[in-house]
Amino acid sequence: MKHADIRALGFDVFGTVVDWRNSIAREVRAVGERHGLALDWQRFALDWRALYQPAMEKVRSGAMGFVKLDLLHRMNLDQLLARHEITGLAEAEIDELNRAWHRLDPWPDVVDGLDRLKRGYILATLSNGNVRLMVEMAKRAGLPWDAILGAEVTRHYKPQPEAYLNAADYLSLEPGQCMMVAAHNDDLVAAAKCGFRTAFVARPDEYGPEQTKDRAPEHDFDIVAVDFLDLAHQLGC
Amino acid sequence: MKHADIRALGFDVFGTVVDWRNSIAREVRAVGERHGLALDWQRFALDWRALYQPAMEKVRSGAMGFVKLDLLHRMNLDQLLARHEITGLAEAEIDELNRAWHRLDPWPDVVDGLDRLKRGYILATLSNGNVRLMVEMAKRAGLPWDAILGAEVTRHYKPQPEAYLNAADYLSLEPGQCMMVAAHNDDLVAAAKCGFRTAFVARPDEYGPEQTKDRAPEHDFDIVAVDFLDLAHQLGC
Repeated sequence: MKHADIRALGFDVFGTVVDWRNSIAREVRAVGERHGLALDWQRFALDWRALYQPAMEKVRSGAMGFVKLDLLHRMNLDQLLARHEITGLAEAEIDELNRAWHRLDPWPDVVDGLDRLKRGYILATLSNGNVRLMVEMAKRAGLPWDAILGAEVTRHYKPQPEAYLNAADYLSLEPGQCMMVAAHNDDLVAAAKCGFRTAFVARPDEYGPEQTKDRAPEHDFDIVAVDFLDLAHQLGC
Repeated sequence: MKHADIRALGFDVFGTVVDWRNSIAREVRAVGERHGLALDWQRFALDWRALYQPAMEKVRSGAMGFVKLDLLHRMNLDQLLARHEITGLAEAEIDELNRAWHRLDPWPDVVDGLDRLKRGYILATLSNGNVRLMVEMAKRAGLPWDAILGAEVTRHYKPQPEAYLNAADYLSLEPGQCMMVAAHNDDLVAAAKCGFRTAFVARPDEYGPEQTKDRAPEHDFDIVAVDFLDLAHQLGC
């Protein structure tokens, strides 16, 4: 078998496993309607996500020490609320809204796909989300992870090489025994540079109708799958 | 509710969740019979385990940098094989025997108890076992952990305070929101000193008929339970 040496699958989560855009828009809408705010919920979700990479870049560049993604999400949310001149939310309400990232819904194929993949492989999150975020999301959505790895335990945000290499080390595996699963070309390219095998699963609706990026694989990845059920099939599960 | 503020349970694993003694004896016996060795399998298991604390103490004292428990188990196994003048095992066979610690059977109440507890709490390993060991044990035995924490991710072996405090930090919880579950008085005392709540679950057969230690709670723990089903009941699950 071509993939016989693979023992673990490391998953990107935001976008690959869960539909953050519609889930965040739903939560923003609930808060917004309670306060009579005139907001484009989808746009707010996209704007919040747009601050994600710049915030992590502060940590990656060393301008800021390592902090959990929950805190970066909160800094970004405060910035967005200020931009929209939204001032009427209580601290507890802002905190609850920030934890919307713990309550993201999986794409429809995910739970069945992971249940099948779990029979043959170690399933680990290899996400920039922190441990608590990943744990609460998994409990709510029924995601059967074997291990929560990723940024917080590796102390590095993807696409830094340590994020991938330390994850493999936690599993006592060589990078070549690990396959990165993501809907994002750059994540897979970074993993491949570390020696990981790669699986691209397109999520063309991640950013909505305007999405132009990551609609298709742009490199020679080991597997290209239409969803997690197809991935399970291709991996013999 | 007395325990309403508890959000996560951290589990000691060797002895509390799994019956290492009979599981290891079974694996030693399989190898021993294959090679016609005259050994007391139970004694070999107990002797292997007896080297566990001294080996970790080398790391705790700083005499040795942090290494995974798999490696400490292997150093101890090599020592035992030499003591018994067992020389006929191939490297792959010794490695496979060392990974017997990945194949320990849970006590009969464990899986049902954890499944119930999982509905109400975050369940994390807070064991000195390394991530791969914990993951393989869980997959084989059906242990529904939400997170694998413990020595490898905290970089400290219990009962060092960092082992407990870093685990709480990974969960973004205060120590008082975490409850340590163990069959060992000293583990719970160390956790309590860090602010953890404590649950003692007696495993009087852990060491076999001669066991004198840890047959009963010796301190004022928050919960004393006869098994994990009783623990679930006392925690309202």
